[in-house]
Amino acid sequence: MRDDATRYLHEQIPITRQLGAVVQGYDGATVRLAAPLAPNLNHRSTAFGGSLSAVAILAGWTLLHLKLRERGADVALVIQRSEIDFDEPVDGDFVATAALPPAAEWDRFLATLGRHGRARIHVRGTIEAGSRKVGTYEGVYVALRPARSGA
Amino acid sequence: MRDDATRYLHEQIPITRQLGAVVQGYDGATVRLAAPLAPNLNHRSTAFGGSLSAVAILAGWTLLHLKLRERGADVALVIQRSEIDFDEPVDGDFVATAALPPAAEWDRFLATLGRHGRARIHVRGTIEAGSRKVGTYEGVYVALRPARSGA
Repeated sequence: MRDDATRYLHEQIPITRQLGAVVQGYDGATVRLAAPLAPNLNHRSTAFGGSLSAVAILAGWTLLHLKLRERGADVALVIQRSEIDFDEPVDGDFVATAALPPAAEWDRFLATLGRHGRARIHVRGTIEAGSRKVGTYEGVYVALRPARSGA
Repeated sequence: MRDDATRYLHEQIPITRQLGAVVQGYDGATVRLAAPLAPNLNHRSTAFGGSLSAVAILAGWTLLHLKLRERGADVALVIQRSEIDFDEPVDGDFVATAALPPAAEWDRFLATLGRHGRARIHVRGTIEAGSRKVGTYEGVYVALRPARSGA
């Protein structure tokens, strides 16, 4: 499952290979996406903020992708907004987590998607290095049911 | 100048090579950082949001880096917060711009940096594809004068 999800990311979004991002865990409500420091180094020998941001955005996307795929939902999933706070320099390998919102919010999202073919959802997460939280993430994603072809 | 700046980015932050980011322009107040679509493709044949985010963060960083280097300022420059709105799918090569804040804000930043050895600044920018604005960016960066070594 984790290997399949990693392979899917690497095939569908090739830059994720260069980032070294791998799905480390998925439990139905949260995703953990790990990445090594080495390919993501900056001029200060810590992780480049752009890499942290990319892996956090990917964690949120992966969570929603896996979750919607479980339901057999045929949707396109795009990011609409991202906010990241970088609290500390990241001087080692890191993990971006993403978590589903509370059940009521998730249910509303699914209901809106079912009714209107389009719905928006907030995903929150963290960036961790070692056992410390070094950043926080919030992403807004939009799920869209593809238009049915006419004939 | 542009080539020097690009070379500096590629050397100091190696993932910028994989992103294909190049400094396209710098006029003392704004930076334009271009990147091709191909290495940044996602599963929908548009640009991966994480790549857009990384290039936008890099544009703001590059602007401040060049601007402070002109003044001979010996500072470390780190990102503290980033916010990006993705307004449209990006289906071609793209450019992230970053612009200095109004002069009064920039002067206050320099004065604070001079006095306290640490100052925070907001940089705003856009993401463009073709001639269209497809996203907006705001980053908060912190400049730090390195501590002098004791002996």
